[in-house]
Amino acid sequence: MADKTPIDTLIDLMARLPGLGPRSARRAVLHLIRKRGQLLAPLAEAMAEVAATARECLNCGNVASGDICPICADIKRENGILCVVEDVADLWAMERSGVFRGRYHVLGGTLSALDGIGPDELRIPRLKDRLATERVSEVILALNATIDGQTTAHYIADELDGRVTLSSLAQGVPIGGELDYLDDGTITAALNARKQI
Amino acid sequence: MADKTPIDTLIDLMARLPGLGPRSARRAVLHLIRKRGQLLAPLAEAMAEVAATARECLNCGNVASGDICPICADIKRENGILCVVEDVADLWAMERSGVFRGRYHVLGGTLSALDGIGPDELRIPRLKDRLATERVSEVILALNATIDGQTTAHYIADELDGRVTLSSLAQGVPIGGELDYLDDGTITAALNARKQI
Repeated sequence: MADKTPIDTLIDLMARLPGLGPRSARRAVLHLIRKRGQLLAPLAEAMAEVAATARECLNCGNVASGDICPICADIKRENGILCVVEDVADLWAMERSGVFRGRYHVLGGTLSALDGIGPDELRIPRLKDRLATERVSEVILALNATIDGQTTAHYIADELDGRVTLSSLAQGVPIGGELDYLDDGTITAALNARKQI
Repeated sequence: MADKTPIDTLIDLMARLPGLGPRSARRAVLHLIRKRGQLLAPLAEAMAEVAATARECLNCGNVASGDICPICADIKRENGILCVVEDVADLWAMERSGVFRGRYHVLGGTLSALDGIGPDELRIPRLKDRLATERVSEVILALNATIDGQTTAHYIADELDGRVTLSSLAQGVPIGGELDYLDDGTITAALNARKQI
């Protein structure tokens, strides 16, 4: 195999996906070639379509196939309650739980002095605009329970203070979690937020 | 997300790749959307090209973008020595070592009474044809050291007996292997095939 064949090119590109290395990329490509009718051709088509249409929702920052994402466009979703998340993966995770019926706002990251990411690099100005125009009554800060996530939550809470009801996700023992395997921080948080039964 | 968007379709298809599940497929798709210019579009193109052109080499069974694979077409490869492997992944593994300069024959699996795979389901008749037409002097049976692989090797050895020199890959301690972590079968094989220094 002296020259680079189309198959080699495909393997190199696949190996750049997160979770795949050169070995699993080769395995995936062989699998694709074996199933070229049922899988490879539809996948090529789906990728071409997403590559051509995917963009950020102008309103909330979710990924979408048009200017406005299906959630922002859905008239059945509750107005007035906004869930702020770090990125689209978090939005998808919230949607899978199927509990939240309001709308989202995707920041696109967290504040980070080290990486030079300030409020203007995130979608924080746009969040303030939405509060004004969409008559939002509650903002849920569903940011990750990491240092960066919590710093960002504090910053947003300060910025929005007094303009809207603010809440954050409860912290405590995860469902199915065993105390023995939990870190001290989680146990402390669960203990401090204990509820009378 | 009530209707199935192009992004959902792409996630579903990606989740059917070996080594990816629903969660890693979502992660991969988000990564692809973020890098749609550098990665998603080229990947869609590479897949479309492979889907359109990939087929089995009529001579050896390798995957190729034409009727004859680059190895069979390469006039610099040695004629007369044929390495028999189970599938294309094994051929690629042999090629990566860069040592073998002869030609290959891909069986497309192993004999299996349980799965109803006999010699005619594999490329064994074609192997016999090649022995006759290509003036092969040596056949290396590079089949996996599994029960099915070794059964198949024995069957082929019986079929070709007397018509050609037969050899198989050496068995023993892998390079970098520690005796403590090797199974008994490998140690037995290495001991039986020991070499005087």
